[in-house]
Amino acid sequence: MTRKYDVVVLGGGSAGEVVAGRLADAGLTVAVVESSLVGGACSYWACMPSKALLRPGAVISQARRVPGAAAAMSGSISLSQALQQRDRMASHWDDRRQEQWLEQHGVDLVRGRGRLDGERRVLVGGNLILEATRAVVVATGSEPIMVPVAGADEVDLWDNRAVTSADRAPRRMLIIGGGSVGVESGQAWYRLGSEQVTIVERAERLLSTEEAFAGAHLEQAFGDEGIEVMTGTDVLEMRRADEGAVEVCLSDESLRTVDVVVSAVGRRASTADIGLETIDLEPGEPIVVDSWLRSLEHNDWLFAVGDVNGREPLTHMGKYEARIAADQILGRGRDARSGRRAVPRVVFTDPIVAAVGMTEADAVESGLDVETRRVSISEQAEAALWGEDVEGAGLFVIDTEASCLVGATFTGPAPLAEMLLGAQVAIVGRVPLDTLRHVAPQFPTFSEVWLELVS
Amino acid sequence: MTRKYDVVVLGGGSAGEVVAGRLADAGLTVAVVESSLVGGACSYWACMPSKALLRPGAVISQARRVPGAAAAMSGSISLSQALQQRDRMASHWDDRRQEQWLEQHGVDLVRGRGRLDGERRVLVGGNLILEATRAVVVATGSEPIMVPVAGADEVDLWDNRAVTSADRAPRRMLIIGGGSVGVESGQAWYRLGSEQVTIVERAERLLSTEEAFAGAHLEQAFGDEGIEVMTGTDVLEMRRADEGAVEVCLSDESLRTVDVVVSAVGRRASTADIGLETIDLEPGEPIVVDSWLRSLEHNDWLFAVGDVNGREPLTHMGKYEARIAADQILGRGRDARSGRRAVPRVVFTDPIVAAVGMTEADAVESGLDVETRRVSISEQAEAALWGEDVEGAGLFVIDTEASCLVGATFTGPAPLAEMLLGAQVAIVGRVPLDTLRHVAPQFPTFSEVWLELVS
Repeated sequence: MTRKYDVVVLGGGSAGEVVAGRLADAGLTVAVVESSLVGGACSYWACMPSKALLRPGAVISQARRVPGAAAAMSGSISLSQALQQRDRMASHWDDRRQEQWLEQHGVDLVRGRGRLDGERRVLVGGNLILEATRAVVVATGSEPIMVPVAGADEVDLWDNRAVTSADRAPRRMLIIGGGSVGVESGQAWYRLGSEQVTIVERAERLLSTEEAFAGAHLEQAFGDEGIEVMTGTDVLEMRRADEGAVEVCLSDESLRTVDVVVSAVGRRASTADIGLETIDLEPGEPIVVDSWLRSLEHNDWLFAVGDVNGREPLTHMGKYEARIAADQILGRGRDARSGRRAVPRVVFTDPIVAAVGMTEADAVESGLDVETRRVSISEQAEAALWGEDVEGAGLFVIDTEASCLVGATFTGPAPLAEMLLGAQVAIVGRVPLDTLRHVAPQFPTFSEVWLELVS
Repeated sequence: MTRKYDVVVLGGGSAGEVVAGRLADAGLTVAVVESSLVGGACSYWACMPSKALLRPGAVISQARRVPGAAAAMSGSISLSQALQQRDRMASHWDDRRQEQWLEQHGVDLVRGRGRLDGERRVLVGGNLILEATRAVVVATGSEPIMVPVAGADEVDLWDNRAVTSADRAPRRMLIIGGGSVGVESGQAWYRLGSEQVTIVERAERLLSTEEAFAGAHLEQAFGDEGIEVMTGTDVLEMRRADEGAVEVCLSDESLRTVDVVVSAVGRRASTADIGLETIDLEPGEPIVVDSWLRSLEHNDWLFAVGDVNGREPLTHMGKYEARIAADQILGRGRDARSGRRAVPRVVFTDPIVAAVGMTEADAVESGLDVETRRVSISEQAEAALWGEDVEGAGLFVIDTEASCLVGATFTGPAPLAEMLLGAQVAIVGRVPLDTLRHVAPQFPTFSEVWLELVS
C-alpha cells in the first residue's frame, strides 16, 4: 500500500514532533513514523526523568543551606515518592498525550519501524510505503554507545535508559563517563540513597569539552559530598562476581566491586537500520547537513534534524533545527548559523554548570582574538542570601575585534541556568560590549555578575 | 577648617559608594559624607534584610512542592535562626566592611551630616567645609513617607526600617500599601509566624504600576496562602487600643484590631535638610537631572544619583547612575538613556513578579504601536519539575514598528528573576525579533517562554 504526503518525518522524538507540527500547522500533509514512544528519549529516558530524579536532592540541599529553613528539614527524602514523581514526569512511559498533540495538529502518526527506500520513499513494516512529495525529514535521534571494555557483554550494564528509569538506588554504583549523563545520574542516585558512587572518566577532568574550571568545581563539590571522581582513569575489564555484583578493573590497578555499572560514554546517531544504503549514504553514520538542515548529498528532498545529524545532541537544539528545517521546506528560508553561535549547555547537577557559545579553547581554535574575564559568583550578595557555602564562578569569552561576547560559562546555584539566556541573547544578537554596559541587572540576583563583564 | 577634594559625595549608600570608588580608582581625590551607616538603606533596612527574611519561607515552600523532598520537611521554620541570618545579612548594622572598602579605594570617609553651602561647597557639622573642585554628587537616597492618616501619630507605626529589623513576628499585622515593600514584608512575616496579615491598598490592585495580571496573580496566591489582601480600600483612621493593640478603621467600614501597623506607602527623596536652599533649589524635592545625572540648574558641578533624583528608587539603578555620573565627571561621556529603557523591577515574593522595560500602558502612553504576547509559565516542562501547583505567566510588549521587545513581565518561580536578564539584554541592545528567533533556550528551563515570543 502506498500513501502520499507532502512530508514524511522519520522519528517522533522532540525534533520530529516540532517539525511535523509546524508543517501541518502551515497546511501541509505530514506523517510521522515512530516505532517507540512518541516524544522520544528526552521525554522518557533523558531530560525529564533525569531532572525529576535530581530535583528532590537539589531543593533539600538548597533549603539546608538557609538558616531558619534548615530547621524544617528534620525528615529524610522519600525514595518512593521521588520515584513516583519521576514516573509522572516520564508520563509513565505512555505517549497518549503526545499522540493527541500530533492529532490536534493534523499529523498522521504511523506506528512502526520506518526505513528509507530510495528517494522520497519510506517503507514502514513490510508493505506500507509512504511517498513524500516535498521532503523526508530524518529525526531518528541517537542511542547510547556502550563502553567497549572486555567483559562488558557479560555484565548487565546500565545505559541512560536504565539509569533514568530504575526503581531502586543501587548500593554501590560505578559510572563510566564523566559527561553530563554520568555526573547527573551519579549525583541523583547518590542523593536518593546509593551509598557509594564512583565516576570514572578517561579525560583529565569531568565535562571535558567545557571550560576547565567547570569540571574542577564539580569534582570538588562531588568530593565534598562523598561522590568519588576518578579522572584520567580507564576501565580495563569487568566481570561478574558473587551475589550479582560486578568487579571492575581500573587503569590505576585498583579493583572495584559494585552492584551496578553505568555506561555513559556518549551517544551516536541512530542510522544503522533506516535504509541509508538505499540512497547511497553510510548506515551508522550521522547524516551530514548544511545550515538549512538539508542533507549535503540530497539537498532537494532530505533533511536531518536533532541528534541524528551529529551536531549538538540537545533537545532544545533539535527543536530549533526542526523550526529551521520546517521553515526551509515552507520556503521561508533562514539558516541556523545564528542559533548555533550560542548553543546553551546546562548540566543540572548541584552546583550546576551552564555554558553558552564558545569556550576559550573553541574561540582560539577558530582563530578569534579573544580576551577572557573571570568572575566570582561566591562573592555576590545573592550568593550570601543562598547560604554560607554557596560557591560559583564564571568566565566570559570576548571577541576583542568585534567587541562582543562569544561565550560564557558559569558554575554555581541552579538559577544560573536561567541567567544564561542573557548571555545567549547577547551572543546571538552580537550586542556590542559598549551597549551591554547599559544593562543594570536587578539587585540582588546572580545576574549581577554581568557587571563584572562590562563595568 | 576647609579641605579640598576633586569630588565630594554627599551620602554613602550604594550609589554614593559606587560613584566614589569609581572616581577614586581613576585617581581623583574623593570624600564621602555620611551621618548614618555606610552602605545605605539597601544594606541594612531594605533589600538585604528583606530578602533574608523571605528566603527561609521561599525555600521551604519550594521543597514542599517537590514529591520526595516534601517528606524531608517534617519540621518547622526556626524564627530565631532566620533572624540571626537576617542580622548577618544586614551585617549586624555595622558598616566596618563598607568603611574598609572605601579606604581600600582611597576614598576619605567623613562621618557627619553634610549640607550644601553654596556652589561646590559642603558643610559637615558646624565647622568643616569640603570644597569640591570638580563636582558634588548628591546621593542621599530617600526616606519612607509615613501614611497621612488621622491618629497615625498616636501609634507606633512601623516603617521599612522597623519591618526589616524587627525581632518578632507580630501576631496580627496590618500593612498599608500593596507595593513591593508591603507585599514582601507581608509574606515574609506571615511565613515567619504572624498569624494574621492584612495588606490594604488604595488602588484596585497590588503592585499598581505593573501589568494588571501580576498584581492579580500575587493577590490570588496570597489569598490561597492565607494572607488577606484588600484592594480599593483606604485607611481612614487609627487609634491605640488595649494591650498595645491598634484599631484601624477602613473605608469599607470595617474595623480591624491588630498588633502592628506598617506604613509602606512609598518613599521621597531625602533632600529636606541638605542645604538645597543655598543653591536655589527647593528643599524636600528631588534633584532633577538630565541623562548624564547632572542637575538641570547646576549642570557644571552638581550631580544627583540614586533615589534622590526621583527616578527609579532601585539599588541597581542607583549604582548604574553612579557609573554614568562618574564617567561623565571623568570626561568619558555616555548617557543613561539606554539603561533606563530597560529598568528591571523584581518583587521577591512567592510567586515573584519580575518586570523590565515598559508595561503595555507605558508603551501606549509613550505613543508606540505595540503588540503584546501572553505566555504561560504553568505549562512549561520546568514548571512540572517544580511541582504540581506551580503557576506563572508572562507578557511581552513589542514595538511593532521597530520589531523589538520593549517590555516584559513575568510571575512565577524565583529563577524568573534571572531570566529577566535575557529580556533586558534584548531591550537595551534593541535586538530585532527576527534575530531573537535564533535564541534556542536550554531545555528544560523557564527561559523556554522565550520560544512563545519568537516562534
